[in-house]
Amino acid sequence: MTEANKNVDVLEKINQMSSADYYFDSYSHFGIHEEMLKDEVRTLAYRRAIINNRKLFEGKVVLDVGCGTGILCMFAAQAGAKMVIGVDNSEMLPIAQKIITANNFDKTITLIKGKMEEVVLPVEKVDIIISEWMGYFMLYEGMLDTVLYARDKYLSPGGVILPDRASLYITAIEDQDYKEEKINYWNNVYGFDMSCIREIALKEPLVDVVQPNMIVTNDCCILTVDIMTITKDELKFRSDFKLKALRDDLIHAFVVYFDIEFSKGDKPVCFSTGPKAKYTHWKQSIMYFEDHIKIQQGETITGTLDCSPFDRNQRDLKIKLDFDFAGELMKSSASLEYHMR
Amino acid sequence: MTEANKNVDVLEKINQMSSADYYFDSYSHFGIHEEMLKDEVRTLAYRRAIINNRKLFEGKVVLDVGCGTGILCMFAAQAGAKMVIGVDNSEMLPIAQKIITANNFDKTITLIKGKMEEVVLPVEKVDIIISEWMGYFMLYEGMLDTVLYARDKYLSPGGVILPDRASLYITAIEDQDYKEEKINYWNNVYGFDMSCIREIALKEPLVDVVQPNMIVTNDCCILTVDIMTITKDELKFRSDFKLKALRDDLIHAFVVYFDIEFSKGDKPVCFSTGPKAKYTHWKQSIMYFEDHIKIQQGETITGTLDCSPFDRNQRDLKIKLDFDFAGELMKSSASLEYHMR
Repeated sequence: MTEANKNVDVLEKINQMSSADYYFDSYSHFGIHEEMLKDEVRTLAYRRAIINNRKLFEGKVVLDVGCGTGILCMFAAQAGAKMVIGVDNSEMLPIAQKIITANNFDKTITLIKGKMEEVVLPVEKVDIIISEWMGYFMLYEGMLDTVLYARDKYLSPGGVILPDRASLYITAIEDQDYKEEKINYWNNVYGFDMSCIREIALKEPLVDVVQPNMIVTNDCCILTVDIMTITKDELKFRSDFKLKALRDDLIHAFVVYFDIEFSKGDKPVCFSTGPKAKYTHWKQSIMYFEDHIKIQQGETITGTLDCSPFDRNQRDLKIKLDFDFAGELMKSSASLEYHMR
Repeated sequence: MTEANKNVDVLEKINQMSSADYYFDSYSHFGIHEEMLKDEVRTLAYRRAIINNRKLFEGKVVLDVGCGTGILCMFAAQAGAKMVIGVDNSEMLPIAQKIITANNFDKTITLIKGKMEEVVLPVEKVDIIISEWMGYFMLYEGMLDTVLYARDKYLSPGGVILPDRASLYITAIEDQDYKEEKINYWNNVYGFDMSCIREIALKEPLVDVVQPNMIVTNDCCILTVDIMTITKDELKFRSDFKLKALRDDLIHAFVVYFDIEFSKGDKPVCFSTGPKAKYTHWKQSIMYFEDHIKIQQGETITGTLDCSPFDRNQRDLKIKLDFDFAGELMKSSASLEYHMR
């Protein structure tokens, strides 16, 4: 088969994929890559972390876990890497291969289609692992597991991972209007009581944009991941938190978001997906609860958040959130359960 | 098992569903019903067509094909139907049953979980079939087939279907800015050539909002469906069209949308999903093509649109669009193929 025919086949294969195929391989649709690439907070942070740290990359062997369109591979090649290996199990990989070729990176970048746990790399060890593994609520979709697998199997002693640090935060918000629209809506739908759907909606974190003026308390870090050292088991975590009100207000929901750091190299880079930072496609994860808390400035909510993969599907998250509040105006406590899917 | 325990089980079953389950049964997630219910153009049109035509419904037996949350069933019951049967194959059905009970419609409304082609109804014939079967591009997802099956098997002679008429239209638009953002974007992504993705994006109708001021030509009806009489085979159609420019402009895309009519009963109702009508969740289907047409007022584009289910997945659509243009400033013709999935 000629090279030209092979290229036609790659596009034809994607054209022949049906909506059912996308169910099984959502990353094979260009739309998801378009959203990620157009998230400039994300993509420019990776670009800065790679391109501006040429010293780190020059002459090195780099592995990109879940390479998608191959953009991080190309940044690494531009930063002077000697060899870049991109691994991805999606049907997008042959397209990424076309992109690598179109941009004349064939000599530097090798793409391999398959699961990280099953593929055979052309090298035994790599100097640098890069990956954009974060899902909603940071841990949804569980691709960090795969990065840790790659680290344990392929990273040279003294090697680095980019990003190398990720932190998960919780805060609490006033959100009466949107709670009415998203949760209490079900109490009266064209005059009908659909409150049984309200119960279902309450148990699912809502991925949406939180305005900074909705924040009522400080934030509290509930997990810091040192990607160089953390083990898979530690991603199933339980953390206490304490949130102190910055003003008198009502609280309708807890909100979780994450920050990412590329601390290695001369020019550290970080970005936040929090409500005070610029919009990212990860938005924030909003967890509503029954009723609300009436809090006064300086009062505190204490609680515990417990997060683990969902039994029936490891990419889903099971989140338990217990909280206690004893304020001057009211007392409240609850044991909440959420399922992120 | 007590009634209370049964109710707990229904919600627990939904809570236990994972993201993988939603892949197979997207209508089991409340989010899709929220979007449809909150589309007031859609839901209020159905409500008007049913509630305001009490004479049509009073004392009748009604079948709702794909009943979802059961809202159309409840409208029919409110309009005086003697018996309403709702059929749906989604895990949403037990939730709909809870809604029916919560609103005291148990005596009138019977819900049955299963495929329309397989379920056993408690009656041999029905007087009225109601259904909200429309997908993007009207025919995407192919639920109209199921309505026609129900019609042929269950509708009494003299019975009616709501809606009973659907029309598909084509028009042409100037859309330079958005084409840059959605199609030509791939030519230069952070300095990289990803034009192979552009080729893929060009072959997929984009479901998005078209502003009325983008319309350059008149519109042309390419399909009228009389739901009382059309056969499944006629949904695989081929239509000629002719579009006349209303002004001098460039044309970057063809746009397809549909209108729906409830013409039976004393008070006919209709709504449009076209760019000049109020927003609906169906938006419009935009089909870009390579380059553009430079047209002058009064000049015409002639063409043929061919639409059929996609071989590998009958809910997908294969759309072929041939056009010819011979204007004073330029000539252009193309044979385009799209895959809606």
